[in-house]
Amino acid sequence: MNVISSFDLEPWSQQRLAEIEACLEKWIPAHAPANLNEPMRYAVLGGGKRLRSLLVMGAFEAGIHKQACEELEWRREAALRAATAIELIHAYSLVHDDMPCMDNDVLRRGKPTVHVQFGEALALLTGDTLQALAFEVLTPEHSLITPYLQAALCGLIARAAGHRGMAGGQAVDLTSVGHDLNEMQLSQMHKLKTGALLEASVLAGALCAGVKDSDLDHLKVFGSALGLAFQVIDDILDVTADSSVLGKTAGKDAHADKPTYVSLMGIEGAKHKADVLIMNANQALLSSDLSTTDALVAIALRVVNRTY
Amino acid sequence: MNVISSFDLEPWSQQRLAEIEACLEKWIPAHAPANLNEPMRYAVLGGGKRLRSLLVMGAFEAGIHKQACEELEWRREAALRAATAIELIHAYSLVHDDMPCMDNDVLRRGKPTVHVQFGEALALLTGDTLQALAFEVLTPEHSLITPYLQAALCGLIARAAGHRGMAGGQAVDLTSVGHDLNEMQLSQMHKLKTGALLEASVLAGALCAGVKDSDLDHLKVFGSALGLAFQVIDDILDVTADSSVLGKTAGKDAHADKPTYVSLMGIEGAKHKADVLIMNANQALLSSDLSTTDALVAIALRVVNRTY
Repeated sequence: MNVISSFDLEPWSQQRLAEIEACLEKWIPAHAPANLNEPMRYAVLGGGKRLRSLLVMGAFEAGIHKQACEELEWRREAALRAATAIELIHAYSLVHDDMPCMDNDVLRRGKPTVHVQFGEALALLTGDTLQALAFEVLTPEHSLITPYLQAALCGLIARAAGHRGMAGGQAVDLTSVGHDLNEMQLSQMHKLKTGALLEASVLAGALCAGVKDSDLDHLKVFGSALGLAFQVIDDILDVTADSSVLGKTAGKDAHADKPTYVSLMGIEGAKHKADVLIMNANQALLSSDLSTTDALVAIALRVVNRTY
Repeated sequence: MNVISSFDLEPWSQQRLAEIEACLEKWIPAHAPANLNEPMRYAVLGGGKRLRSLLVMGAFEAGIHKQACEELEWRREAALRAATAIELIHAYSLVHDDMPCMDNDVLRRGKPTVHVQFGEALALLTGDTLQALAFEVLTPEHSLITPYLQAALCGLIARAAGHRGMAGGQAVDLTSVGHDLNEMQLSQMHKLKTGALLEASVLAGALCAGVKDSDLDHLKVFGSALGLAFQVIDDILDVTADSSVLGKTAGKDAHADKPTYVSLMGIEGAKHKADVLIMNANQALLSSDLSTTDALVAIALRVVNRTY
C-alpha cells in the first residue's frame, strides 16, 4: 500500500509504551497474599508488543477534543486504565492458553510460560486473578472518571472477553482441531478469539475520548478489520518465522492440525487477504469525522508488515 | 442461641430462590459458540445452596425503602443481577478449584465435576467465561440501573474475587497445605477465600438498596463474621458429614493435610467459635438503623445449624 504520511510511529509508540508500562507497574500489586503478585507480574510485565494498549491510546487521541483541561486529565487516565485492563485480560488468556490442558506451551515472550515457572495451580489462579484485576482497574473509587464511563468500559471489556468474544473463540478453536473450516468459519473463529479484544481496544479508547456514535461505528469497522488482519499475519508468521524471533513456539498451529489462513489460501493468498483487510480498516477511518488518525493508520500498517 | 422471631425463612427463601434461578436461567446464554453454553449451564444451574444470592436479597430487603415505585423496580433488578453475578463468580471458582491441578475433585453438588464431564480444557474456559459473564450481567445496556450502581457493583465484586479476596485466599490455601497455621493465619486465609465474596454479597444487596454509609459499615461486620462462621461450619462438616449428604467429597481437607478449625480447636471448640461469630454478626445488625433484618438473622442462624 502506498500511504504517504509524515507520521513517525516509533517515537509516538515509545512514549505511549513507557506510560503504559508505568501504569501496569503501578496497578499490578507489588504485594499479594502468598506472593501471588510474583506470577501476576511475571505474566504481564516485561514483554509483549502491547498492540492492544497502543490501539486504545491511538483511538483515544484520534477522538479526544483538547479543550477542558480537567476533563482531558480524567479522560486520559480512563484510557490508560482501559489499556491496562485490556493488557491484563490478554495476559490472563495467554497464561491459561499455554497450560497443559490447552496448548501445552513452554515458551512465551521468550520466557518459560507461567505454569512452567510457577506450577499449574498458580498459573490457573494467576489467570483468574488477572481477569478480576482488569475490572478492579476499571472501577477506581474516589475518581473523577465518571461512573458512566467506568460501567461502559466494564461492559465493553467483559463482553469482548466472554462467550461472545475471546473465550467463545477459544472454545471454537478447541473443537476445530483436525476439522476443515471454510474461510467464513475460520474468520468467525478469529473474530471471536482475537478480533473481539482488538476491536474492544479501539472502542475503549474512543469511549474514553467521548466520540460520537457515528465515529464509534467507523472505529468498530476499523477494529474488526484490523483484528482479522492481525490473525492472518499470525498464521503466516507461524509458518515463516522461527521461535526465537516470535518469542513463542513457531509452527505449532500447523503441527496441531489447526485450520489457518495459510492452510486455506497459501502464504501469498493470506498476505493479499491481510493487505485488503488493512485497506478496509484505513478506509473506515477516512469515512469518519476523526481528524488525527495518523497513529491508528500507522499501527494498522505495522500490523501487516510485522515480522514477529 | 435463643433468638425468638416469628419470621419463617423457608417460604421467604423459596420465593427468592425461584426468582434467582429464573435470572440465572435467563442470563446464562442458551447458545454460545462451540456449545460453551452447555458446561456453563451445567456448572451453575440446578444445584447449590445459593447462600450468596440469599444474602444479596436479604441485605437488599433490609435496606430498601419502599417508596418510589419505578426506583424500587430497577433497584430490585440490580439486586437480582448482583446475586446472579456473585453466583457466577462462585460457580467459576468451584469449577477451577475442582480441576486436577487444584483439588482434583470428581464430585460437586452430587454430580461429576465440570472437568470430569466436559474435559479439562473446557472446564478452564468455562470458569473463565463465567467470570466475564458476571461483569456482563452487572452492566446491562439501555437499563434504568444507574451507571453509578453498575460501576460500584463491578468494583465491589472484582475486588472480592481478586487478589485481595477469593483468588488471593486460594493462593494462601495452596501454600498452606502441610503447614501449621495459628488461628489468626487460618482466619485470615478464610476471610479471603470464602469471606470476601460472602461479605460482598451482603454489601452488594445494600448498595442496590442505597443504604447509608453507617449501615454499610454494620453490614460489613455482619458479612465478615457470617463468612467466617460459614467456613468454621464447613470445616466441621468436612469431618462429620458424609459425601452423599454434602454433595461433594467429605474429609478431603483432613485427608489433604490442610489446616482447619477442627484440627486447630476440635469439633466442640469450632462449634462454639461459630456460635460466637453468629452472635457477633447479629449484634452488628442490631446496631444498625436497618429495620427489617429478619431474613438476614434467619440466614445467619441457618448457616450455623446447617448439616450440608
